[in-house]
Amino acid sequence: MSVDVATPEVLIHRARLDANIARMADATASAGIGLRPHVKTHKVLEIARSQLAAGAVGLTVATVGEAEVFVADGATDVLIAYPLWATSEIGRRLQALVERATITVGVDSPEGAANLAQHLGASASRIEAWVEVDSGHHRSGVRPGSVEEDRIADGTGLGLTGVFTFPGHGYLPGQAKDAARQEGEALSSVAARLRAAGHDIRHASGGSSPSVAFSSPDHVTEVRPGVYALGDAQQFELGRCGWDDIALSVATTVVSQRVESRELIANAGSKVLGSDRPAWTTGYGRVLEAQGARVTALSEHHATVRWPDEGRMPALGEQIRLIPNHVCLTMNLLDEVAVVEDDIVVDRWVVAARGRNR
Amino acid sequence: MSVDVATPEVLIHRARLDANIARMADATASAGIGLRPHVKTHKVLEIARSQLAAGAVGLTVATVGEAEVFVADGATDVLIAYPLWATSEIGRRLQALVERATITVGVDSPEGAANLAQHLGASASRIEAWVEVDSGHHRSGVRPGSVEEDRIADGTGLGLTGVFTFPGHGYLPGQAKDAARQEGEALSSVAARLRAAGHDIRHASGGSSPSVAFSSPDHVTEVRPGVYALGDAQQFELGRCGWDDIALSVATTVVSQRVESRELIANAGSKVLGSDRPAWTTGYGRVLEAQGARVTALSEHHATVRWPDEGRMPALGEQIRLIPNHVCLTMNLLDEVAVVEDDIVVDRWVVAARGRNR
Repeated sequence: MSVDVATPEVLIHRARLDANIARMADATASAGIGLRPHVKTHKVLEIARSQLAAGAVGLTVATVGEAEVFVADGATDVLIAYPLWATSEIGRRLQALVERATITVGVDSPEGAANLAQHLGASASRIEAWVEVDSGHHRSGVRPGSVEEDRIADGTGLGLTGVFTFPGHGYLPGQAKDAARQEGEALSSVAARLRAAGHDIRHASGGSSPSVAFSSPDHVTEVRPGVYALGDAQQFELGRCGWDDIALSVATTVVSQRVESRELIANAGSKVLGSDRPAWTTGYGRVLEAQGARVTALSEHHATVRWPDEGRMPALGEQIRLIPNHVCLTMNLLDEVAVVEDDIVVDRWVVAARGRNR
Repeated sequence: MSVDVATPEVLIHRARLDANIARMADATASAGIGLRPHVKTHKVLEIARSQLAAGAVGLTVATVGEAEVFVADGATDVLIAYPLWATSEIGRRLQALVERATITVGVDSPEGAANLAQHLGASASRIEAWVEVDSGHHRSGVRPGSVEEDRIADGTGLGLTGVFTFPGHGYLPGQAKDAARQEGEALSSVAARLRAAGHDIRHASGGSSPSVAFSSPDHVTEVRPGVYALGDAQQFELGRCGWDDIALSVATTVVSQRVESRELIANAGSKVLGSDRPAWTTGYGRVLEAQGARVTALSEHHATVRWPDEGRMPALGEQIRLIPNHVCLTMNLLDEVAVVEDDIVVDRWVVAARGRNR
């Protein structure tokens, strides 16, 4: 089986994508939790529209530039889940955005919030500000019980209406449940502290694709998974998606081989797949055609694949489809992707927010 | 010191770039070895023109799409250093290219060469084919003394006029000199075998930025370093460039900090820097302002920086410039870069071949 595309080409398997979107929408609705998908994963308008049509309460983005792309397409409620440091340019762009949609920004310091308020001017009252909480991932965010929590509760120049966290420490085998528990405890703790200071905290936002199944409506009003829509080798190896749920692969051609060692070289590398390789993963990616195969090395344009001992090895010139470890990086590398149904290309989607890093 | 750009932004330090280009041109000229820079590193027309003006014998690229970009800009001699598997589309594009420039392609199997010849048709006699040699990196390429060497020597349907290798195993501390020795031995061995079979082997192409200083004119006619023009954290840590030679940095803004642990978060992550992190590197990148600082973690839009114990930590909102581990991935992520002289933006260059993965 092969898809009629020039390789390397990113393929989106439409039926799997649709099923993933529906499954997460159903699961969060059943749990009584809102779903605000992180669209930095895919950066594609068509996928965001499907997520909103399936009941998402809004979208999550990482940058002002991503917010602009999705608001221009009609999104009405967008969280920029990032502790923005405003400049006059960022201030002007946010002013334009709040005219068209409900925009929420992250803050994790009174200095950052005051700087945002200053550059927003009269629009400051129209933006929502949610405090980012460090629930154990130790990246940005205020820690429960810290001096920073007190400082931000004491006043920032922006109205604080929510809390959010990224439980990224759930991206380790067996850690997702604990991460979700810590997410809930940290969000509730900081929300209580902010409420005690008089802030009207109405939103508590958590969740990542690995941990979202363990998020509790006792602690969160919404979750923000991203990768779930597409799946990748990392989610599969974490046990957070099934093999047949993986909706993105990269069509490649076998260009070289070493038959004696059961190795082949496919014509896609880190410039298409991305090069994320957490220590606990089994390689640089997987192969759709053979669950036992591994991408054992990755250069910019070469993937070295170790084929399983059993079974026929693909010949030179044959197509194989690689599954990247981390799909968010893959989608950031190409301008367009091919949409397939039953191995037939039925559409092409533009990666509308690719490279919108500012 | 800061540069007046919206962050994150890739900066090319013009004076350093020019010095790097001149230094490598002088070194290879003195050694009597041709220089064919690998332009996948930067993908920028202006930089390739400088390299050619400094005496480069031609350019190296990884894909047909990259060749098209540089030939359209006037390059007259381009090596596609990759074992291409031709399709009818690739055949048509190569036919167009050989009308405009001397085009050389890599082959590492008689099947791949025969397939190329078939799709090139009447243009097959106008293309140069060089045999890729595995000199120890164990990616693509034929191994000296192997059955594949005999098979390719026996005939491929393309005229074989050269040999080339990528000594990528020199990308380890202390290994560059040995890798260059193996490069020379492997190239000479395969060239001798091909000559014995009647092929007129006139080119032996080696070299990577770490190993090029050790390449010998006894074994190579030309070398193909790429990263040397820009430098990166990896080359610095390998001892292959000085701190003040690093010509690319990523301007970022400090958006969050943890003063007690001397950590800060800068607003650029793997979607701008790339996420290559060989095990021997000291982190995910370095910081131009403080040689003792390390990027200790990298998310898509966050770089966690551990600041040295001594000295003032940058404040929230301050600009710091990150040095990526592997600059080839960084240049593949943005459509444009800012060119700076004395911290003033003097130009903007389009990354003309970004995303040309086919």
